[in-house]
Amino acid sequence: MNILLTNDDGIFSDGIRALYESLSKISRVTIVAPDSERSAVGHAITLSDPLRVKKINRGGKFFGYATTGTPADCVKLAIRAILKKRPDIVVSGINLGPNVGYSVLYSGTVSGATEGAILGIPSFAISLATFTNPDYSFAAEFAKKLTKQILKYKNLPKGTLLNVNIPAVAKKHIKGVRIVKQSGRAIEERFDKREDPRKRVYYWLTGEIIKSDAKEDADIETIRKNYISITPIHCDMTNFEFIDKLKKWKF
Amino acid sequence: MNILLTNDDGIFSDGIRALYESLSKISRVTIVAPDSERSAVGHAITLSDPLRVKKINRGGKFFGYATTGTPADCVKLAIRAILKKRPDIVVSGINLGPNVGYSVLYSGTVSGATEGAILGIPSFAISLATFTNPDYSFAAEFAKKLTKQILKYKNLPKGTLLNVNIPAVAKKHIKGVRIVKQSGRAIEERFDKREDPRKRVYYWLTGEIIKSDAKEDADIETIRKNYISITPIHCDMTNFEFIDKLKKWKF
Repeated sequence: MNILLTNDDGIFSDGIRALYESLSKISRVTIVAPDSERSAVGHAITLSDPLRVKKINRGGKFFGYATTGTPADCVKLAIRAILKKRPDIVVSGINLGPNVGYSVLYSGTVSGATEGAILGIPSFAISLATFTNPDYSFAAEFAKKLTKQILKYKNLPKGTLLNVNIPAVAKKHIKGVRIVKQSGRAIEERFDKREDPRKRVYYWLTGEIIKSDAKEDADIETIRKNYISITPIHCDMTNFEFIDKLKKWKF
Repeated sequence: MNILLTNDDGIFSDGIRALYESLSKISRVTIVAPDSERSAVGHAITLSDPLRVKKINRGGKFFGYATTGTPADCVKLAIRAILKKRPDIVVSGINLGPNVGYSVLYSGTVSGATEGAILGIPSFAISLATFTNPDYSFAAEFAKKLTKQILKYKNLPKGTLLNVNIPAVAKKHIKGVRIVKQSGRAIEERFDKREDPRKRVYYWLTGEIIKSDAKEDADIETIRKNYISITPIHCDMTNFEFIDKLKKWKF
């Protein structure tokens, strides 16, 4: 079995190492990840610039390939140029911080798995719902289990990936797994308006408090209640329900 | 009426000027757009860096605000920091080149409109399906008409935007408008492996031939047949059909 591993926090992050160590117990794992943090890059790919690839050692031995690209670039490059064999699965993470609600659209971690799905490979993204003092051990363990499940059931639809969020609590407090929808708007934000030392104005995005407007249980509420959330997400963004109404418009 | 206008080809592109001139005939229009090209940035936002905003003149008079951010940043900045009043509609484009199939996920143009939809404002993205010798006049005219329709029907669902692609043919050859789904995989790609003058290897994404695997008519086929394609796309990427199957997996 061959696993392709990527992330958006970069090849030197603790989250990808935890995942590498856990998944290496069940499979060959190849890391192709950004050479530094690429958070909130969305599903970006690099068209205007060349991409570089560098072999990286960690702890004195070969660890993986670092690229100058985004997570989506990494997955494309791995499959089209680096790997000799197509991977059986693409895993992206473990992200430092949750990827829930509309933030999924901004997520580099999710985009790594999305690119896997676009290229026809079973894929999932995994995130730990905290920004401070992360303990990746349970998430890494769960990723191993989920990898086995995905390859066992073999029924992920074409172009669909799994977006997994792990509550940041001790293993004994985790209540189980819930399959839920992506929630709606989740970020309350504003811009800090500041002046640089030369009195020029600049803006900085801030105030990212997560709240949900979902009427039923969705990803945000699920992890709040200490359940692991798994949301199947797909690359077809068509709003089919609205198509018929739109057909009634006159052009 | 207030229109917020953005794009991903940058504030100095011909596509945004064509749109500005056309929409200015029916409304006040404010441009907040990237200071240079930001193609294929996906739905990226800038978290790690400050954003700068600069007033730009074209043809000797004020044209709009250029920012150092992505199209999604531009829309956030406009609504949260630059505009005094919330716009009635967000328009993104006119993009040089189609935005169809899975490429919608990579599109900066679409992400400008997506951000509008996330912030609760009716939004559409408009693209001209050619990379060479663009004539934006018909697309700009259609955008004006569509803006009026959107504000007339007022029934775009929350979190849903319209993705519009215009065939690059003379007006008389355009057969009409079709409301269609997003097609599946659309890009056949590979990486050129090259050596720089210092004999170091680099990779460059190439071979972007558009093909579709859709069984029914979708965006790609529609514009090929000289119809304007309009696809309602939404920010909820949940694959609802698959949820029940996934619930049967054992964890």
